[in-house]
Amino acid sequence: MTPEEFRRIGHALVDWIAEYRSGIEQLPVMSPVAPGAIRAELPARPPERGATLDSIVDDLNRIILPGITHWNHPGFFAYFPSNTSFASVLADLTAAGLGAQCMSWQTSPAATEVEEMMMEWLRQMVGLSPQFTGVIQGFASTATLCALLCARERSTNFSQDRGGLQAEEKGLIVYASEESHSSVWKAARLAGFGKENFRQIPTDENHALIAKELEIAMQTDHERGMRPCAVVATTGTTNSTALDPVADMAVLARLWGAWLHVDAAMAGDAMILPECRWMWGGVEGSDSIVLNPHKWLGTGSDLSAYFVRDTEQLIRTMSTNPAYLKTQHDARVKNYRDWGLPLGRRFRALKLWFLLREQGVEGLRARLRRDLQNAQWLKEQIDAAQDWERMAPVHLQTLCIRHLPAGWAEGAELDAHNLRIAESVNRRGRAYLTPSILKGKQIIRVSIGAETTERRHVETLWRELQEVASAVQ
Amino acid sequence: MTPEEFRRIGHALVDWIAEYRSGIEQLPVMSPVAPGAIRAELPARPPERGATLDSIVDDLNRIILPGITHWNHPGFFAYFPSNTSFASVLADLTAAGLGAQCMSWQTSPAATEVEEMMMEWLRQMVGLSPQFTGVIQGFASTATLCALLCARERSTNFSQDRGGLQAEEKGLIVYASEESHSSVWKAARLAGFGKENFRQIPTDENHALIAKELEIAMQTDHERGMRPCAVVATTGTTNSTALDPVADMAVLARLWGAWLHVDAAMAGDAMILPECRWMWGGVEGSDSIVLNPHKWLGTGSDLSAYFVRDTEQLIRTMSTNPAYLKTQHDARVKNYRDWGLPLGRRFRALKLWFLLREQGVEGLRARLRRDLQNAQWLKEQIDAAQDWERMAPVHLQTLCIRHLPAGWAEGAELDAHNLRIAESVNRRGRAYLTPSILKGKQIIRVSIGAETTERRHVETLWRELQEVASAVQ
Repeated sequence: MTPEEFRRIGHALVDWIAEYRSGIEQLPVMSPVAPGAIRAELPARPPERGATLDSIVDDLNRIILPGITHWNHPGFFAYFPSNTSFASVLADLTAAGLGAQCMSWQTSPAATEVEEMMMEWLRQMVGLSPQFTGVIQGFASTATLCALLCARERSTNFSQDRGGLQAEEKGLIVYASEESHSSVWKAARLAGFGKENFRQIPTDENHALIAKELEIAMQTDHERGMRPCAVVATTGTTNSTALDPVADMAVLARLWGAWLHVDAAMAGDAMILPECRWMWGGVEGSDSIVLNPHKWLGTGSDLSAYFVRDTEQLIRTMSTNPAYLKTQHDARVKNYRDWGLPLGRRFRALKLWFLLREQGVEGLRARLRRDLQNAQWLKEQIDAAQDWERMAPVHLQTLCIRHLPAGWAEGAELDAHNLRIAESVNRRGRAYLTPSILKGKQIIRVSIGAETTERRHVETLWRELQEVASAVQ
Repeated sequence: MTPEEFRRIGHALVDWIAEYRSGIEQLPVMSPVAPGAIRAELPARPPERGATLDSIVDDLNRIILPGITHWNHPGFFAYFPSNTSFASVLADLTAAGLGAQCMSWQTSPAATEVEEMMMEWLRQMVGLSPQFTGVIQGFASTATLCALLCARERSTNFSQDRGGLQAEEKGLIVYASEESHSSVWKAARLAGFGKENFRQIPTDENHALIAKELEIAMQTDHERGMRPCAVVATTGTTNSTALDPVADMAVLARLWGAWLHVDAAMAGDAMILPECRWMWGGVEGSDSIVLNPHKWLGTGSDLSAYFVRDTEQLIRTMSTNPAYLKTQHDARVKNYRDWGLPLGRRFRALKLWFLLREQGVEGLRARLRRDLQNAQWLKEQIDAAQDWERMAPVHLQTLCIRHLPAGWAEGAELDAHNLRIAESVNRRGRAYLTPSILKGKQIIRVSIGAETTERRHVETLWRELQEVASAVQ
């Protein structure tokens, strides 16, 4: 492709994206395609001969778009906000154009140093003290895996430099609430702790970890000859944005010499609002923290910010130093290949740079506050409605609700009714919700926070829910 | 940002990239900036107020570009080819514009099904049988970590579902050549095997693993009560593209029930050339294979293709199934969140789709053959030159060479001389090379394969090397 062709098709694709985003509200939020439908549109064998890319825009409309679930749609209330702002799209374009590999400082100094500064800006924005240093990881799941690996190595005085975990005495234990994200459980398994050594601590009526239960569990394990190794506190659980008692957990972690990791994947974005910081009170007592600018803030995936107190501990766990990666500047620079799982790294910090320049901290704060207000408005509607029930506090932008018609009892029928409501709303296409289970009960989860979602979209959702609830009864 | 502003700035950035790529040859390949220079250009605090992005293009030229090492430069002979073709840039732009989260089928069916088909196309392209199924992982390093985790779980009959690796009897062993990539060693440590249980098998005069040595090591470990768990064969080592004897290693792995992982990170791209497939002869006996289209083929990072024989084994190692991730289609579709380390996933398959449409298999084959011919040309020059020595066979596009002036002996002085040559070439800015160590000797590594590198650039490099070698003597 010549630079001239690239210009022409690049302009066409920029226009295509602008049109897609402008008209997104007319599309069904959740893709309605059947399994296999997209695959059937693609040839079974790769093309032998190349072609111009002109046909690609047609195919984007014909093949790809029907198979996209629109995360930037104003009716997107599923999972979590995952905004890819226009600023982030432009940054990804630029990063791809530069095509820089950012494994070491020398392989692209700008990528390393912009990342350093963006993590420093973000640290200030979320109100963490300078004892924390940030680095970009892919996703919260892999950042949490990093944390548990570091915990394992600290507890075993770097067993990986000797016989590994398999040579250790049995009994390193990981603790997290029963409402912690599945990636914590996955990380504990992948890091070699094993299911039997992962303690799911009970939660209170607000779905937050009960500190007293954690205390008992750690004490009991100690008496059995086990070693508490890591505690994961969640600030804003995926299900209901429940807030674990970070300060109490920090005290217990310190008492037993365990690593404290704070999983604030989505809620951490809200820490740019000073009025929200009570939610992770005690966070300064943690060893590591993950929060995802690629969720609510507006950088596209992947951009997880991982803050650690002891960078040397992270580097010792993750580093290798073969001859073909050595450079003459190594003593004076950060080589981020030694700060996480993968060796290769894209220039992801550019997304944060573009976004923060365009929005400023004020712009991001205003948008998040809008979402918090929209969530409070919907909470008021639910609380005022006779036949709807709210199943969790609304700390942030997630509501856990269910329809409870007069006279219905707890049980499978009620659960099925609520699952039907969610699936029916999703099929209608104006909104997309995630059904979930909270303390054994079927709930409908409403997560507000797409960049495009205004009050009117939340009002529409509320009307849809009521209509559908009547219709499916 | 309004869609109109996005169009305007998007067009400007597309033009900027076209100009950057057109003029790239005039830039020094390796960034000449001093540590800290880029960071010093960035404000110490995030902006409170947002601004238009118009200033960004200025800043790209003023702040970012001097700090970029240009991997798409025709004089890029360092590390490995990491081409981000124009087609890939356009695909990344499109993927960012769509902003799809691809953790599950339902969260964007098109992303899952395009990935399925692209991995199927790639499987055909590299000549693997249908017993292998592909999935995109981030980088070869994380794909290798996946492989060793799967190996660990297979050898322990899924210890992670019980007491984990820490509850196992001591002695799971991982084998790889002493020339295997540092990420293999890192993966073995992170997976909990420990340094003492990682065997670096000696290599022959061509830097390939000696099968007899592997056989002895496995037998010896067995006699000591250890359990051979995983064998990593490298097709194309990073240092010298050495070719481990995959077929022999497959026999030994099968004999001892060990997992065979083939690390063909860069060389795997060459398997689209039928005449190169002898290089990984025996690959059908492996359990997993990684190759990186984001290296030589031309998709930008990250896009590692990970092929496995037993998908159920991979899924059982990586899956979690919480309520908030369940969908009604789960039984009939692939949910790639369960096929690797991270939960979140970008729509990366689009890069392969754009590239293959634009180039066709023929286009990619022609480019790779050009690079192989350029490497052979340079090999001939080296072999014909009195005072240059070639330190390894040239199977593909990497040359390991050194300057050996008449009368110089082996030793520190000769090593320092060759390191000086590489660093001096790099400072001059027309080419960028990686100095490395091979069997204890300082070498200069020439890796040919940037999309823009033509014969004349290799000729220029050869002149530079000769000039510099005379000058620094």
